[in-house]
Amino acid sequence: MRHQKFIEGKVVLDVGCGTGILSVFCARAGAKRVYAVDASEIATQACEIVKANNLTDQVVVIHGRVEDIDLEEKVDVIISEWMGYMLLYESMLPSVLFARDKWLKPGGLILPSHATLFMAPITNSERYEGSVDFWRDVYGIDMSALVPLAKKFTSEEPSIEIIGGENVISWPSVVKCIDCYNFTTEEFKSITAKYKVSSMMLAPIHGFGFWFEVEFNGPAESSHNFPSNLDPPEIIHKKRRRSSEDTVLLSTAPEDEPTHWHQTILYFPDPIGVKQDQIVEGSVTISQSEENPRFLNIHLECSTGGQTLVKDCAMR
Amino acid sequence: MRHQKFIEGKVVLDVGCGTGILSVFCARAGAKRVYAVDASEIATQACEIVKANNLTDQVVVIHGRVEDIDLEEKVDVIISEWMGYMLLYESMLPSVLFARDKWLKPGGLILPSHATLFMAPITNSERYEGSVDFWRDVYGIDMSALVPLAKKFTSEEPSIEIIGGENVISWPSVVKCIDCYNFTTEEFKSITAKYKVSSMMLAPIHGFGFWFEVEFNGPAESSHNFPSNLDPPEIIHKKRRRSSEDTVLLSTAPEDEPTHWHQTILYFPDPIGVKQDQIVEGSVTISQSEENPRFLNIHLECSTGGQTLVKDCAMR
Repeated sequence: MRHQKFIEGKVVLDVGCGTGILSVFCARAGAKRVYAVDASEIATQACEIVKANNLTDQVVVIHGRVEDIDLEEKVDVIISEWMGYMLLYESMLPSVLFARDKWLKPGGLILPSHATLFMAPITNSERYEGSVDFWRDVYGIDMSALVPLAKKFTSEEPSIEIIGGENVISWPSVVKCIDCYNFTTEEFKSITAKYKVSSMMLAPIHGFGFWFEVEFNGPAESSHNFPSNLDPPEIIHKKRRRSSEDTVLLSTAPEDEPTHWHQTILYFPDPIGVKQDQIVEGSVTISQSEENPRFLNIHLECSTGGQTLVKDCAMR
Repeated sequence: MRHQKFIEGKVVLDVGCGTGILSVFCARAGAKRVYAVDASEIATQACEIVKANNLTDQVVVIHGRVEDIDLEEKVDVIISEWMGYMLLYESMLPSVLFARDKWLKPGGLILPSHATLFMAPITNSERYEGSVDFWRDVYGIDMSALVPLAKKFTSEEPSIEIIGGENVISWPSVVKCIDCYNFTTEEFKSITAKYKVSSMMLAPIHGFGFWFEVEFNGPAESSHNFPSNLDPPEIIHKKRRRSSEDTVLLSTAPEDEPTHWHQTILYFPDPIGVKQDQIVEGSVTISQSEENPRFLNIHLECSTGGQTLVKDCAMR
């Protein structure tokens, strides 16, 4: 509704519309026509919701994959809620990119327009002690034999959970800025980023947290490329500055209100202690699994204070 | 440890020992020998835990199904943590009964000795409104088309969740008292119980809650049959009375401290309003699925104030 001026009188395509809630918002914002597309059975309910809200003149629900459908016209705006856990897990972004290349008019608008995936080392003694150290003494019984298993369970898969700003021990590092106007499906297959951050405190690093933000920029802001070389403090400063302006920002960061995306944490089997101002650096690669393109493989390297950790895990 | 006098100098069999924690407790309580049996790989860790606690003279870990193993002697005591959600889901009780018939000496002790499954109508408007009524108005959009789906999702499978005593609207009804000395695997296949309770308040019934208690009685109390014809108030009175005495009781009731078993709730698709003192009656059948013996089929009938509801669901 804050972008009503970009929607009014326009033709909109909602990729993966689900219940159709975004399509209904667009219709209420005055869209001339909205094509609401979803491959799942939920399209039946979306259709009923459109009827119940007297929007059948504006909203056309299409049950099918956006890759397969045929529209009578090109569209002015693509909207989509395509983001998965850790932004990329089970993400529908490839369908949005497909729709952009086939159905978006030149100069058309994509909402959200930009997405940024962040990472930062995190500390979470309470969680680690509860999962791992707990076994060292259970009602006076030495159950340390379970510690290796507990470390394995804790660290073998990314954990979707809510942490707070207090768990984050450095400025976040940008893993990837996705400009929805220029990003390609090819780039989506494997994303690699280096990071180099400085610990803000003396703490054990228990792993890395990942989260994302998406921006809903208007056409003017979309015409120039999204700056991908900003330092995280600049990006965060920019975010704070923008939040009162034209851009709408959805953040899933630990310091913001929790969302159903939570944060995604890769726990280490063993914590690594760092001092204040100690440099933590390395790289991360997030790639589609060859076994199943819906799965993500994550390869993380981390060096600090002479220690190096290499971690591979899969998000299934 | 409160039953040390029944364990000291005795031969114990721990059915499904897991990490071996109960076996270690028995060894510390002075058991002459403990056979700790588990079919899963956890037996490896149980073995290490026994070593780490210097109990290899007393505790013998056996990796195998209790149905397949061979012991050198019969045992004085069988201990087991066999209880599943709703007492019976993925329960290991049949293995305990097998061990009893094959390995327990006449007059031997079973801990826990008795288990009681309870049920009661519950009210939980917050949960029901959040899952079902939520869709009637989402940011001013009529999404009632989703209400039938939401009712289906809410009621098609039992829900494992924590409720409080304030959600329970009548005295609980006993579904089954299991006396571990006399219960048979045959009886385990299908359990049917009638109930007739009186609502303590004006409220919408959103479904039925199920929970259980297990008792750890000494040999004297075990020699007579467990009274299965007590009214719930008498049972609860007995529980309160006993908790300070020789019997150890583990309760998973809503009015007690939450456990990892939580409670199991069968939600109705639609609430049924009842007045104070209104009778709610019917029957429940809990049976092993023919498809998979680990699954439970639940058939519930409920009549009150001229309304009748019949509900079938499966716990998979």
